[in-house]
Amino acid sequence: MIDTDGTGRHMFSSEQKSAIEAARAGWAQTRRLVVPAMEDVLYAPIPVLETGFIRAVDYMGGDSGIVQGARVSYGKGTRSTSDDRGLIRYLMRHRHTSPFELAVLKLHVRAPIFVTRQWFRHRTASINEYSARYSVLEKEFYFPRPEDIAAQSTNNKQGRADALPPEQARQVLDILRDDASRCYDHYLDLLNEDENGERRDPGRPAIARELARMNLPVNIMTQFYWQINLWNLLHFLRLRADSHAQYEIRAYADAILQIVQKWAPLTYEAFTDYMRDAVLLSGPALKVLRAAMGGQPVDPAQAGLSKREIRELAELFPEIAPNLAR
Amino acid sequence: MIDTDGTGRHMFSSEQKSAIEAARAGWAQTRRLVVPAMEDVLYAPIPVLETGFIRAVDYMGGDSGIVQGARVSYGKGTRSTSDDRGLIRYLMRHRHTSPFELAVLKLHVRAPIFVTRQWFRHRTASINEYSARYSVLEKEFYFPRPEDIAAQSTNNKQGRADALPPEQARQVLDILRDDASRCYDHYLDLLNEDENGERRDPGRPAIARELARMNLPVNIMTQFYWQINLWNLLHFLRLRADSHAQYEIRAYADAILQIVQKWAPLTYEAFTDYMRDAVLLSGPALKVLRAAMGGQPVDPAQAGLSKREIRELAELFPEIAPNLAR
Amino acid sequence: MIDTDGTGRHMFSSEQKSAIEAARAGWAQTRRLVVPAMEDVLYAPIPVLETGFIRAVDYMGGDSGIVQGARVSYGKGTRSTSDDRGLIRYLMRHRHTSPFELAVLKLHVRAPIFVTRQWFRHRTASINEYSARYSVLEKEFYFPRPEDIAAQSTNNKQGRADALPPEQARQVLDILRDDASRCYDHYLDLLNEDENGERRDPGRPAIARELARMNLPVNIMTQFYWQINLWNLLHFLRLRADSHAQYEIRAYADAILQIVQKWAPLTYEAFTDYMRDAVLLSGPALKVLRAAMGGQPVDPAQAGLSKREIRELAELFPEIAPNLAR
Amino acid sequence: MIDTDGTGRHMFSSEQKSAIEAARAGWAQTRRLVVPAMEDVLYAPIPVLETGFIRAVDYMGGDSGIVQGARVSYGKGTRSTSDDRGLIRYLMRHRHTSPFELAVLKLHVRAPIFVTRQWFRHRTASINEYSARYSVLEKEFYFPRPEDIAAQSTNNKQGRADALPPEQARQVLDILRDDASRCYDHYLDLLNEDENGERRDPGRPAIARELARMNLPVNIMTQFYWQINLWNLLHFLRLRADSHAQYEIRAYADAILQIVQKWAPLTYEAFTDYMRDAVLLSGPALKVLRAAMGGQPVDPAQAGLSKREIRELAELFPEIAPNLAR
Ligand SMILES: Cc1cc2nc3c(=O)[nH]c(=O)nc-3n(C[C@H](O)[C@H](O)[C@H](O)COP(=O)(O)OP(=O)(O)OC[C@H]3O[C@@H](n4cnc5c(N)ncnc54)[C@H](O)[C@@H]3O)c2cc1C
Ligand SMILES: Cc1cc2nc3c(=O)[nH]c(=O)nc-3n(C[C@H](O)[C@H](O)[C@H](O)COP(=O)(O)OP(=O)(O)OC[C@H]3O[C@@H](n4cnc5c(N)ncnc54)[C@H](O)[C@@H]3O)c2cc1C
Ligand SMILES: Cc1cc2nc3c(=O)[nH]c(=O)nc-3n(C[C@H](O)[C@H](O)[C@H](O)COP(=O)(O)OP(=O)(O)OC[C@H]3O[C@@H](n4cnc5c(N)ncnc54)[C@H](O)[C@@H]3O)c2cc1C
Ligand SMILES: Cc1cc2nc3c(=O)[nH]c(=O)nc-3n(C[C@H](O)[C@H](O)[C@H](O)COP(=O)(O)OP(=O)(O)OC[C@H]3O[C@@H](n4cnc5c(N)ncnc54)[C@H](O)[C@@H]3O)c2cc1C
Ligand SMILES: O=c1[nH]c(=O)n([C@H]2C[C@H](O)[C@@H](COP(=O)(O)O)O2)cc1Br
Ligand SMILES: O=c1[nH]c(=O)n([C@H]2C[C@H](O)[C@@H](COP(=O)(O)O)O2)cc1Br
Ligand SMILES: O=c1[nH]c(=O)n([C@H]2C[C@H](O)[C@@H](COP(=O)(O)O)O2)cc1Br
Ligand SMILES: O=c1[nH]c(=O)n([C@H]2C[C@H](O)[C@@H](COP(=O)(O)O)O2)cc1Br
Repeated sequence: MIDTDGTGRHMFSSEQKSAIEAARAGWAQTRRLVVPAMEDVLYAPIPVLETGFIRAVDYMGGDSGIVQGARVSYGKGTRSTSDDRGLIRYLMRHRHTSPFELAVLKLHVRAPIFVTRQWFRHRTASINEYSARYSVLEKEFYFPRPEDIAAQSTNNKQGRADALPPEQARQVLDILRDDASRCYDHYLDLLNEDENGERRDPGRPAIARELARMNLPVNIMTQFYWQINLWNLLHFLRLRADSHAQYEIRAYADAILQIVQKWAPLTYEAFTDYMRDAVLLSGPALKVLRAAMGGQPVDPAQAGLSKREIRELAELFPEIAPNLAR
Repeated sequence: MIDTDGTGRHMFSSEQKSAIEAARAGWAQTRRLVVPAMEDVLYAPIPVLETGFIRAVDYMGGDSGIVQGARVSYGKGTRSTSDDRGLIRYLMRHRHTSPFELAVLKLHVRAPIFVTRQWFRHRTASINEYSARYSVLEKEFYFPRPEDIAAQSTNNKQGRADALPPEQARQVLDILRDDASRCYDHYLDLLNEDENGERRDPGRPAIARELARMNLPVNIMTQFYWQINLWNLLHFLRLRADSHAQYEIRAYADAILQIVQKWAPLTYEAFTDYMRDAVLLSGPALKVLRAAMGGQPVDPAQAGLSKREIRELAELFPEIAPNLAR
Repeated sequence: MIDTDGTGRHMFSSEQKSAIEAARAGWAQTRRLVVPAMEDVLYAPIPVLETGFIRAVDYMGGDSGIVQGARVSYGKGTRSTSDDRGLIRYLMRHRHTSPFELAVLKLHVRAPIFVTRQWFRHRTASINEYSARYSVLEKEFYFPRPEDIAAQSTNNKQGRADALPPEQARQVLDILRDDASRCYDHYLDLLNEDENGERRDPGRPAIARELARMNLPVNIMTQFYWQINLWNLLHFLRLRADSHAQYEIRAYADAILQIVQKWAPLTYEAFTDYMRDAVLLSGPALKVLRAAMGGQPVDPAQAGLSKREIRELAELFPEIAPNLAR
Repeated sequence: MIDTDGTGRHMFSSEQKSAIEAARAGWAQTRRLVVPAMEDVLYAPIPVLETGFIRAVDYMGGDSGIVQGARVSYGKGTRSTSDDRGLIRYLMRHRHTSPFELAVLKLHVRAPIFVTRQWFRHRTASINEYSARYSVLEKEFYFPRPEDIAAQSTNNKQGRADALPPEQARQVLDILRDDASRCYDHYLDLLNEDENGERRDPGRPAIARELARMNLPVNIMTQFYWQINLWNLLHFLRLRADSHAQYEIRAYADAILQIVQKWAPLTYEAFTDYMRDAVLLSGPALKVLRAAMGGQPVDPAQAGLSKREIRELAELFPEIAPNLAR
């Protein structure tokens, strides 16, 4: 059951698997708010990318804690009038974000270094990461699936275009694998260690770990504990479960979304409606839209919209696209 | 049992008491880390000052969660070598603060506004406070006990000196009570409400709550939910459970310390030794101290110590005080 | 010229005025980015409410610093292609907020305590406030203008309705003034000081300032230095220069907007278009809108919109209001 | 003059050098606080490690701004009594940190990725970094000087021991250089670009930059703008200009210290005395020390000191070391 990946990959040592199973088996009594759907998934890793995972290792609060916190500011007034769902949607809609801060999630994550570099730019979280000064990094790298190896997008400087033909993708992978493997071997060489952590050559010094690791490429896997409150998590998800984010971090964001849906379903729904699927219409865009709706189209460029904005507005509202095209 | 104050004061309405009792009675199963000593006190208010309280309403993690988080950064290495207590003390000593951030506490607090103004200056927390725009503030004020009414300190601009003679203290209290009472009455007057929230005079408008409240003195009580991680909580406690802090906020900090002791006893002990009872010796003070110990006293003023620093050093080390005095 | 209020009110002592004039007269050479329009207003107070003010006392960066910071992440690529205005608008539109964090503003503010309680909830700023533990608060209160004294709104729990008739407004003001005056007199009494800071009665102790001040109402004026980066300032302004914010803090936010306009005009314009005048359409609202535009209206309630959301959508797009009403 | 490195290395293109020179030549008038010693160094790069640098690109405030901010909280009281130096030392000693937050520094930094991973863990700063999604990383790596290539420390898991013999160091460098070079070549290969950014093979797709870069080792250089207030900078420096920090980040911290010394000399001095050279004596250590001084030594282990703490105490106070050894 814990082996949620079912891919036959050995993401965890049997020792680690036992530890997870033991943790999952350990039930205790609490007076705190409990979210049964979260208890179901607690500690169990969700595989992400080929060799990564996330797993929820603790949580605090949830939808009802948010509601309880929000109500303190409203005093007696609200108690009866609005139901939980309504209140949560109201809070989200009006960006009353402080009640969402009252819920907290703790994850254990394994991800490639280039992904963590993007991840850790979110400063409103607490992190404990595996240290390559202190310990030896394991020989685990991220290599994209062939179908994820794509060409540089030409119109989006930060994006990808189509996937490569399989043959070329394989060549790319060969390069990545070769280099990773060679660099890692040299890493062990510098550490003067074999794969089991035994000293190779007793006559040679072991280079300091913090130095030796500088040879490792950024697709090597690292792991960390990550704790963040729900509001800042939603902010993270808005940016990272988004088409502008790099595919690899998006894969993690999507997995986290699954957890949020279990943990705080009402908040998840409100997030979907008011943040994820929501669209921000700029002041000028609003004017152009209304004019077009009223049948008196204005020149969107003159109204201040850039070409890209006009195109996006037309995509959003195909109904009025002809009016915008002029 | 919930009536932990035992003072006969009616801090909670019977409705609220029932709600607290119900919350305390509600046990559920969890796979999360549980701290039994915290479960004991959960939801139960601890009285602070005369009309205030704090109560723990949720927590996440504790000593063992800290240790678990810290160990991720050390990889396999540490697991056996150091016990939990040793590791926590090591982390505290070396200001490896990120593992302490993994534990989170949520409190419900009632306190006077002038105390919250100091409290909320700590920005690394999440707050939801009762709103006087939205609801009517209750007629609850903080009045010091007579023995806490003290004169202005003459050598410490931010502090108090001796308590006033009882008679004078009573006069002070009379003034405070009178003004609070009159202001509150006028507040209700402006709101056009009686004490039960019923409209007084149907022919008169009710002034907007957000305006009417501007008449209320800063010793009126407010309430809020407060969530903070353990590291930032310790930082708060170091500043607020300290002789430089105003007595009234110190009373809250002291009550929170009791909770921390139950929640994370090893961290509490390490905090006591390495933060609370610890002393920071400046570079120059260290030199002066060592010289004095070596029997070759230097002139502390020449070494760069201010008069106050010399005095403090002498108080800290009466053994060498004579050497410093010169 | 510094007397920008021109109201004849004596917001500053002549000593303070000289200090401001001296500061304004002190020009020096710098290699840093300079925004001449900001230099014009530097140090000069802008009156807010009756007895408050804000004044810019320092700034760092501005539009061109933002652009410069943004370009580091784009490498060579952008330098030519996009002009400053286009880039700033692009950053704002895509919530690339980190470049806006590179500009920093420092204000000196005088405001009533109940306003600062809202203000200081914005945690992403640095504050130094006048201390009533350390110093005696001056006899300066905020009293609304008669036309700002309004009734409680009945449909908006946090808002105001119409202004009171002049006569009733005057009565309200009388109450506010009386109570403020009496409380302040008692404050001095407790401090055993007269208005010039001289001890009144040598035979009586002076109550500690930190205690005596608890008698003061929340409309007393305080002052503080406030430093915040431009991104967080825009976030503050979005929330506080908004119709949901209390009128009194909105007055400050509006004054700050004037400063931002001088300091970073391109950012100000982008803020106006993409944050202030922008409208967030939720996923469901978008669907309903498009359906209505396409002539195939759906039942908005069934689509998930609350009554209030339907009303707001209809107000936003009167063109399709009839389609929504059903 | 700008070529402050004088090493003949070509850290900047001639184009960049001109830009820096132009920036340095551009003087303007300002009413803001100016620190002449900072103007001297503004924009000029200080070389760090072999291929890195830092340069101050903007600043706000300084010692006198701190003092000015601190004084607002003290009201009239302080103005005369304490001089700037005394006040700054007082603030530092009592951890009145908010005035130090009023000064802000902006740096432009080039550093290896493994250093930035440590750097960016400091969350209280604003960052804009070169993006490898958007632009192609240059062929610039960090390779330690031979004398900095050291063996793993055996008693300090996170540290280094002695430098390697030159011959072995050279071998290490060969490995690092080879791998870096091969990985970078493959990177260009994947990008289908030559070193001038020209497409190599028109018949082949260019892999997306965000994918191709995963092949690059963590000693490749990146660059970023970094803005932080002075308090958090001192906190950074305490942790990073410290013997526990990795040598490579320490090199940057040391360079920043030079800048701080120019920018805010009084704060720098106070930092040195009260943070950098200061020593934290734990409660138990204080007891042991006093007992030893009084000639009545207690068993330090029994007093609660760990072996390491006893050793450190003895090193700190050789005078009483014999008393501790028992
Ligand atoms: C010698 C050394 C060894 C280290 N070893 C490891 C390791 O093995 N593994 C590892 O993961 N890290 C390690 N670190 C990194 C360390 O854990 C910190 O992340 C880093 O030093 C930044 O310190 P900071 O959190 O005090 O700084 P900042 O992030 O600048 O924070 C300063 C203060 O601001 C507040 N704060 C900032 N952000 C938040 C927030 N989001 N929520 C609440 N409060 C906040 C806190 O009060 C904090 O103390 C090490 C650091 C050093 C110097
Ligand atoms: C109309 C209105 C009504 C309000 N009603 C109430 C009320 O009834 N009761 C009440 O208590 N408050 C109320 N507030 C205050 C509100 O809850 C916020 O505290 C305030 O608006 C500041 O907003 P902020 O948190 O977004 O700003 P900031 O504190 O500046 O935070 C900005 C962002 O920084 C991050 N951040 C900052 N500090 C932290 C931290 N310590 N940990 C993690 N992330 C952090 C978060 O991502 C946050 O979104 C109201 C505000 C408004 C405008
Ligand atoms: C005895 C005493 C006297 C005081 N006197 C005065 C006074 O006269 N006037 C006055 O105004 N205040 C005064 N204060 C309040 C004091 O200045 C602090 O605001 C308060 O103690 C909170 O401390 P903090 O900033 O360390 O805590 P937090 O706000 O919790 O911050 C902790 C750490 O987090 C980081 N951090 C948090 N938020 C930010 C941010 N937005 N940007 C960057 N880093 C951040 C910083 O590293 C900070 O050190 C006093 C406090 C005490 C205890
Ligand atoms: C598609 C995309 C492209 C990007 N491109 C680049 C790039 O080219 N270069 C680059 O460097 N980065 C880039 N980033 C990273 C980006 O600049 C942010 O650093 C990252 O998205 C984190 O966002 P945040 O700052 O909103 O989150 P958080 O750090 O979690 O902050 C949330 C909010 O908290 C407050 N806050 C947190 N910390 C502080 C603080 N220390 N002081 C004041 N307020 C604070 C602010 O209000 C902030 O808005 C990119 C991100 C995305 C998603
Ligand atoms: O989508 C992005 N997300 C992100 O966080 N960065 C940050 C992460 C890192 O600090 C720096 C460069 O990252 P990339 O090389 O992954 O772009 O900018 C950049 C981009 Br683009
Ligand atoms: O001990 C203190 N603690 C504190 O937080 N302040 C802050 C709180 C408030 O923002 C401002 C003035 O508070 P007092 O009037 O309580 O000093 O400074 C001041 C002092 Br002194
Ligand atoms: O518009 C608001 N803005 C705000 O910051 N608060 C915060 C400030 C304070 O911490 C608490 C109660 O403030 P009011 O009494 O002003 O609502 O909530 C509340 C409201 Br409503
Ligand atoms: O001295 C350190 N400084 C630091 O910031 N880390 C952080 C940086 C990164 O997020 C993670 C692992 O870094 P190293 O591999 O450099 O230890 O811990 C770790 C150590 Br040890």
